[in-house]
Amino acid sequence: MPVYEIDETHAPARTSFVASANGHRDFPIQNLPLGVFSRTGEAARGGIAIGEQILDLAALAASGLLTGEAQEAAQAACADSLNQLLALGASPRRALRRAVSALLAADSPQEVRIADMLVPMAQGTMHLPARIGDYTDFYVGIHHARTVGSLFRPDNPLLPNYRHVPIGYHGRASTVRVPGAEVVRPRGQVPSPGGEAPVFAPSARLDYELELGLWVGPGNDQGTPIPIAGAEAHMAGLTLLNDWSARDMQAWEYQPLGPFLAKNFHTTVSPWLVTMEALAPFRAPAMARSEGDPAVLPYLVDAEDALRGGLSLSLEVALSSAAMRDKGLEPLVLSRGEAAQAMYWTLAQMLTHHASNGCAMQPGDLLGTGTLSGPPEEKGAAGSLLEITLGGKHPLALPSGETRRFLEDGDAVTLSGRLHAEGYVAIGFGPCSGTIAPAPAG
Amino acid sequence: MPVYEIDETHAPARTSFVASANGHRDFPIQNLPLGVFSRTGEAARGGIAIGEQILDLAALAASGLLTGEAQEAAQAACADSLNQLLALGASPRRALRRAVSALLAADSPQEVRIADMLVPMAQGTMHLPARIGDYTDFYVGIHHARTVGSLFRPDNPLLPNYRHVPIGYHGRASTVRVPGAEVVRPRGQVPSPGGEAPVFAPSARLDYELELGLWVGPGNDQGTPIPIAGAEAHMAGLTLLNDWSARDMQAWEYQPLGPFLAKNFHTTVSPWLVTMEALAPFRAPAMARSEGDPAVLPYLVDAEDALRGGLSLSLEVALSSAAMRDKGLEPLVLSRGEAAQAMYWTLAQMLTHHASNGCAMQPGDLLGTGTLSGPPEEKGAAGSLLEITLGGKHPLALPSGETRRFLEDGDAVTLSGRLHAEGYVAIGFGPCSGTIAPAPAG
Repeated sequence: MPVYEIDETHAPARTSFVASANGHRDFPIQNLPLGVFSRTGEAARGGIAIGEQILDLAALAASGLLTGEAQEAAQAACADSLNQLLALGASPRRALRRAVSALLAADSPQEVRIADMLVPMAQGTMHLPARIGDYTDFYVGIHHARTVGSLFRPDNPLLPNYRHVPIGYHGRASTVRVPGAEVVRPRGQVPSPGGEAPVFAPSARLDYELELGLWVGPGNDQGTPIPIAGAEAHMAGLTLLNDWSARDMQAWEYQPLGPFLAKNFHTTVSPWLVTMEALAPFRAPAMARSEGDPAVLPYLVDAEDALRGGLSLSLEVALSSAAMRDKGLEPLVLSRGEAAQAMYWTLAQMLTHHASNGCAMQPGDLLGTGTLSGPPEEKGAAGSLLEITLGGKHPLALPSGETRRFLEDGDAVTLSGRLHAEGYVAIGFGPCSGTIAPAPAG
Repeated sequence: MPVYEIDETHAPARTSFVASANGHRDFPIQNLPLGVFSRTGEAARGGIAIGEQILDLAALAASGLLTGEAQEAAQAACADSLNQLLALGASPRRALRRAVSALLAADSPQEVRIADMLVPMAQGTMHLPARIGDYTDFYVGIHHARTVGSLFRPDNPLLPNYRHVPIGYHGRASTVRVPGAEVVRPRGQVPSPGGEAPVFAPSARLDYELELGLWVGPGNDQGTPIPIAGAEAHMAGLTLLNDWSARDMQAWEYQPLGPFLAKNFHTTVSPWLVTMEALAPFRAPAMARSEGDPAVLPYLVDAEDALRGGLSLSLEVALSSAAMRDKGLEPLVLSRGEAAQAMYWTLAQMLTHHASNGCAMQPGDLLGTGTLSGPPEEKGAAGSLLEITLGGKHPLALPSGETRRFLEDGDAVTLSGRLHAEGYVAIGFGPCSGTIAPAPAG
């Protein structure tokens, strides 16, 4: 079945017997994202989000209700990570989706048995969906690259390679976490006030970055590239990703080998993997290219990818300070934007480029897009404080009367996303949140 | 027991009943490095190199000859990776070393039983010693940094941060291999002859880099730094590391986020982990600092580390082309140098800096030092062709009548190292070799 094919699981009329799913902002029956959860005292295992419930895939695999590829996929999702499921590729995943969609539907003949396999989200602790082999972060948001470039290198904001090569770098897999873990302000080498030599101190310019994350599977053998036309077959699904960044440490350390400690202390991903199958109705052209941009090299060109390599996806960032929460104030929306306007390179181009030198991609690898900021003429679409406050020069006013140049201890940042397309039920990722904790004593 | 302590296992008079060990270049009884091996049709498991033999740790763990911590360590080494052993830290590893040293000694009362647990190296296939969680490459070779900087940035060879912060970046874990795997020449975006836009073609400037690799264990929890005084407790041992590099791809892609596809297609490590215990007699000051260098920030200062954070270690790189091998010519030694003269930062400083922002280090993580080149006044001590041929400007003459600017298909590169100290038996790593295979058809 073609990668982008829309089937009965996307039918807007389909509803679920799980009442909280119908009209749910993120997890209606049209979504069915995959995750790993546990209840107190129980082993972690795979699950599927439906409204405010989690369908227990270990229970489903043991039920005898599935057959063939769907059963194979459910069986692979019984472990404490989905790596085995991601290794199977799209076909079993799609079979599981279709089977689960029927079992959860309003007219499901198995409602009673399935209802027994549901765990309220409030009772579940979420874990990383996969053991991450390698985590790579790209830089496909051209407006972010240009704005940040102008702050770090005023003479030379967008480097000559940017429009030719999907820029990326390796990140740290060991510190990628789902929401719930405190984001501890890092210490590091930062400029001393007035001095030439740095001091070792807590970062004073802590920031977030609004990104998407791509979960990889099955991947390729070392030495065997992934052709662009086949790239979608190695994508399992998407997540929201917050690439927490210490700007003062970054500016000092990043030359010549790139960001290191400024970004590897913590990365937050939303726990639900929204499958490529669920995304089918929301595929769109990427729109961040301009007339006159250089031709893309043939190894990154595919007609289908040009038409549907992007996403109809609205992204939003909200912030609440401790004082705002104390006063009962709503989180302040810092930005709203469209992913398609931000992405110069598609997900398929990221993956194909990554493997083009023979680099081995493995099930459970995670690729970040880099910060997705809207074009500068779209006010309020910038995906980091660095861009919003222009490096701290224009502080942001909070409804509590506070101001922000960068993040303060106690600040909570929440990324959210909404996939939308006319005639289809919108779906989301669930929140991707993190709260800043003070640096440990020095 | 203190990290640097020398005990009876280092006694120069100690010999083994394994005849090939006595006088062995790399693996006399004073070394006892750890690795993972398999024989055809058998499961991979831990082993210890002794001369031309491998002591099977699964057989030893099952023998009943060990007790206490030594048995615990052997048991942890029965799996197909040493991660579990690395997680135990130094004390069980040291207990295993002492027990095995006695069991393999010339006067061993268990010679007959132990002899049954030996596998000839020629029958064993070596595997990676650990599943690598994250691989990080540093840049501690100051002479390399200066020479390469002068090629990439003639005006600005050594950046202002170099003497303050141990520069490092994340590498790719999925493509680290032991010798035996072909090193396939990568394709990638390289400059077109005379054109402004790049072309996608096989790298024409393929290079090696002479490095050391540090295997980490046990590591720290996220958010909890590793103090410099305690860093050695999280180091398991060393390996040789060849950071194969495509210089044309690197020059084009590395700004602003650092090297990516130019280096992640293949990294070779020697398969034997030479333990920190084995290294005790060979610890020395690092000598690449000069008077007038800026003071090291306190979080990276430790008196013991300043005295013994370096290594008395001679390193060598040799090359043989296919034509040289056809003609029966010996490999050409490209460089000889001393690690201590190359390293501006110690292994402990690398590890402590990496964890200083709370980044979680895990058992089986791998840290490369970066290229270890001698000072420019030491002729013939440069650890890459980029330095030896000055970016290809001064081709190297091979004894076959060929010349080399960079590596050609069929070239075999072998790194080797020798730890030496007066009054002690020298030990080594075994060879770290790789042969360049042609790029796949485009």
